Amino acid sequence: MRMSTLFLRTLREDPAEAEVASHKLLVRAGYIRRAAPGIYSWLPLGLKVLAKIEAVVRDEMDAIGAQEVHFPALLPREPYEATGRWTDYGPNVFRLKDRKEADYLLAPTHEEMFTLLVRDLYSSYKDLPAMLYQVQTKYRDEARPRAGLIRGREFIMKDSYSFDIDEAGLDASYLKHREAYRRIFDRLGLDYVIVAAEAGAMGGSRSEEFLHPCEIGEDTFVRSAGGYAANVEAVATPVPPEQDASGIGPAHVEDTPDTPTIETLVAAANQIAPRQDQPWTAADTLKNVVVALVSPTGERELLVVGLPGDRQVDAKRLEAAVFPAEVDQTTEADFAAHPELVPGYIGPQVLGPNGAPRGENAGGAVRYLLDPRVVPGTAWVTGANEAGKHVFDLVAGRDFTADGVIDVAEVREGDEAPDGSGPLELARGIEIGHIFALGQKYAKALELSVLDSNGKAVTVTMGSYGLGVTRVLAAIAESTSDEKGLAWPVTVAPAHVHVLATGKDEAVFSTAEQIATELTSTGVEVLYDDRVKVSAGVKFADSELLGVPYALVVGRGLAEGVVEVRHRATGEREELAPADAAPRLRELLSEAGLG
Amino acid sequence: MRMSTLFLRTLREDPAEAEVASHKLLVRAGYIRRAAPGIYSWLPLGLKVLAKIEAVVRDEMDAIGAQEVHFPALLPREPYEATGRWTDYGPNVFRLKDRKEADYLLAPTHEEMFTLLVRDLYSSYKDLPAMLYQVQTKYRDEARPRAGLIRGREFIMKDSYSFDIDEAGLDASYLKHREAYRRIFDRLGLDYVIVAAEAGAMGGSRSEEFLHPCEIGEDTFVRSAGGYAANVEAVATPVPPEQDASGIGPAHVEDTPDTPTIETLVAAANQIAPRQDQPWTAADTLKNVVVALVSPTGERELLVVGLPGDRQVDAKRLEAAVFPAEVDQTTEADFAAHPELVPGYIGPQVLGPNGAPRGENAGGAVRYLLDPRVVPGTAWVTGANEAGKHVFDLVAGRDFTADGVIDVAEVREGDEAPDGSGPLELARGIEIGHIFALGQKYAKALELSVLDSNGKAVTVTMGSYGLGVTRVLAAIAESTSDEKGLAWPVTVAPAHVHVLATGKDEAVFSTAEQIATELTSTGVEVLYDDRVKVSAGVKFADSELLGVPYALVVGRGLAEGVVEVRHRATGEREELAPADAAPRLRELLSEAGLG
Repeated sequence: MRMSTLFLRTLREDPAEAEVASHKLLVRAGYIRRAAPGIYSWLPLGLKVLAKIEAVVRDEMDAIGAQEVHFPALLPREPYEATGRWTDYGPNVFRLKDRKEADYLLAPTHEEMFTLLVRDLYSSYKDLPAMLYQVQTKYRDEARPRAGLIRGREFIMKDSYSFDIDEAGLDASYLKHREAYRRIFDRLGLDYVIVAAEAGAMGGSRSEEFLHPCEIGEDTFVRSAGGYAANVEAVATPVPPEQDASGIGPAHVEDTPDTPTIETLVAAANQIAPRQDQPWTAADTLKNVVVALVSPTGERELLVVGLPGDRQVDAKRLEAAVFPAEVDQTTEADFAAHPELVPGYIGPQVLGPNGAPRGENAGGAVRYLLDPRVVPGTAWVTGANEAGKHVFDLVAGRDFTADGVIDVAEVREGDEAPDGSGPLELARGIEIGHIFALGQKYAKALELSVLDSNGKAVTVTMGSYGLGVTRVLAAIAESTSDEKGLAWPVTVAPAHVHVLATGKDEAVFSTAEQIATELTSTGVEVLYDDRVKVSAGVKFADSELLGVPYALVVGRGLAEGVVEVRHRATGEREELAPADAAPRLRELLSEAGLG
Repeated sequence: MRMSTLFLRTLREDPAEAEVASHKLLVRAGYIRRAAPGIYSWLPLGLKVLAKIEAVVRDEMDAIGAQEVHFPALLPREPYEATGRWTDYGPNVFRLKDRKEADYLLAPTHEEMFTLLVRDLYSSYKDLPAMLYQVQTKYRDEARPRAGLIRGREFIMKDSYSFDIDEAGLDASYLKHREAYRRIFDRLGLDYVIVAAEAGAMGGSRSEEFLHPCEIGEDTFVRSAGGYAANVEAVATPVPPEQDASGIGPAHVEDTPDTPTIETLVAAANQIAPRQDQPWTAADTLKNVVVALVSPTGERELLVVGLPGDRQVDAKRLEAAVFPAEVDQTTEADFAAHPELVPGYIGPQVLGPNGAPRGENAGGAVRYLLDPRVVPGTAWVTGANEAGKHVFDLVAGRDFTADGVIDVAEVREGDEAPDGSGPLELARGIEIGHIFALGQKYAKALELSVLDSNGKAVTVTMGSYGLGVTRVLAAIAESTSDEKGLAWPVTVAPAHVHVLATGKDEAVFSTAEQIATELTSTGVEVLYDDRVKVSAGVKFADSELLGVPYALVVGRGLAEGVVEVRHRATGEREELAPADAAPRLRELLSEAGLG
């Protein structure tokens, strides 16, 4: 590749909409361009990196015996209807009609089609196990596409699916994928943590995420020194034992003027009704948070979540818990329809089973769910459903109950791990892979069974395994780049060596050309900056922005018989004779694991 | 690849919906599966053939200096609105809205996006010429998807685009693509004819199609011994000289009862008003055909086409001529709205400029267009707009005129070529490539200009070049298959050698395995039929159906030291010693152009 003709223009300015380093740099370095929100075009250098990542993924999939196929992106409604996902995906899926008014979608994932294909071809236990995969363009109509390639609306995924006769077979297929993913990320030089995860829209019994630890990641995960690791959505709060409330007197309402927040309430409680043993804290209050939910079919419902006042509701845990419904902002109209909800002073007495029987008044009593910590026998300070009044000694199980439990309070640094393996620490990460032991959900819905050795029909047990190819590219860019630009590992770089001819000397260009040719002839991928009217400074800046792992600078030093090798990642520089350049670069590439 | 684990099941029966050989065989041989009308899933063997075709295409595109990029399939409305194609494509494009109600389409082709990208990056004449391409999934909501991969709704295309400063540059880029296409089809072993074509939706001054001559092709083309070749839509009928009508008497209406067809009219004319010099023939009658058109925005209009009675209206020429409107069936309602149109007896007197002034009555006069042969001075027998009556000696230009000319009469075997190069012969073909000298249509609409050497802004001149990758695959299957199955050329076959172990003898399997391993180790791609409980007959039939170019049969003969090489395309068989098998196969592959 020659810079003089390469379809590339680097930008000095960050694109206006870009917030994260990978997004800024991939655009500035001419790897991608935005076509629409969350939808990107790939330029020559970007496409080369993408192809290299795809090759590693294919290689490891083939190595575990998975076979590549390719499904359409445009698919009819029916299979997704059969599994309920046509509805469950709500507004997250792009839907359209063809000229005959038949319903189609742009597939966000392909469980249904793989299930149907295997049903179409296979009929006996002897055909199993089977693993199939594709590297394919997927579509999701994200509410908030962000961070460039990290959360896009059109993106490339490798998705694979396993088909087994029983749970033991699924375990083996699941493990093969887990190991293949480890090898893929290892080869790509991408740091990762495997965490327990929620299955979400996918369904199934068990799932794990591969997270690339990274400040800009959307996923929060926890880990303990004892080896526990989970996505924050998957952390189950340990349920404390029930309490004996026999010593607690009857609930009593107190005037607590101007206490719409937990802080003001705690301060007031310690003044009005001080406790003997210790002062009231936020953890003694029961906070009731109103949440608006929209079902996939568009129905709106209010929900109140009751949780200890020292914890916030975690938005992502809430989203996962209410799936397939979506969380929406509450509005004035919501409160107007429920005058029993007095903002700042909401208490359980008007909610769920404690409130008006459902359907009796306009809205019926609002559904009420409790944090797992609010076990029977615990006593709380909480709203009395009247402005300026709170109720004290309101005992769970005695004075109020709920419609059920919801585990959506924030997980905090230092909380005990659910498995008792020590205190949790929190970190953020980018989800780069997600593996699911689906079980029989799809096989049942789409009637995929095979005959076992006794001639009896057995429902097939499935797994599904996703790896975000374009997101992995962004994660690598994010983790390897610096303030000067991209800095690709050799495995995925768009070229191995960036040869720069600087200055105007004919000898510089002919030597650079000669070394570039020599490298190319031995299989080294060279990007050659042969531009004649471009200053050395611009060439250096471009080279650092583009992030090819090694640069060879042929310039002023040539007169003294010296050229320079620059290591992009470390900034290291080596001077050497022109004749030594190609051998030294091949040595460096070989040390970096190439060839 | 081992048949025992390959994700493949061959079918003995043709799929119900399949009409053409390639479609039947690709499904039966387990290369593709139908997911929806005109939408296919790719199975492992199909995907391998596809990858090989794509590699050849990429190789030749790279060789002419085109650079690969990749655009989204899901694109916003705006760029297509700017060029008018959002509307022009009518129902042929899949349209959808995202969750914010913004309009999107699934791109049928990408002129707009490439134009915008080049505008985004380039600004000077020094940046040109540039050629860019992609291999990408395209979408068209075809009214009649048919013939499997030949006319699909989701399909793979290589599309490329050239950007030049002037017409001379465009000529050079166009020629490079033309030559690259020739090399691609030559390498793929696919016979083709280059014909002049209509530009259709694409616009532009000049275009040529690459057609693979084939009975099941949708395109009809003509060629003359003198070298003229054109798609039938692009044939311009030579316009005869105007006639002197001074000797022709006034038009006269005659009773012609029961003559709603040209045949009955000619017979009646020869009875009622016989001509002195020669009998009336169909060529003396003026047939007026009513056509319903629907504009891209859904407006319906009637049109009458007047042409000599010995010619039919050609549906494809009509479609091309009325683009972007679509042709629809006429209905009773159409005729009810225009009582002046008397079926079987329609004449020009009530049409177009001869009819009621537009808008005076309900529908106004119907638009009237004439075949180019109906020049001023020619006299015709035609309908008198009353059942059972025709008018004689109605002279074009004297007694009637039209709103314009439309060249949509059928082209017939033996018609003179427009360039006078001899009589035309007709043939059918599959369109496998289409190259367009677009000119400045897109660059103007999207304001793509660069500064020339004087610093003056110059609109860029473009070309666009399409090659149907999935359609090429089907065309190869169509042209190489026989009644037994597929028969791939070595270049694109999913494997080079199909090793068959037949019988139950252990030695057979170990010898077959050994030869397969030997071949694989020297880079030969082997499909090994290692299935143990499958009869030799089934293995032979599968092998012929799958169409790997060479089969090596290890079976009964092994005891006598003999194995057999079978040539799939010719049916030829060679017996040889097991030790000679691998060298002989390598020799055959090398003769076939491999490696």
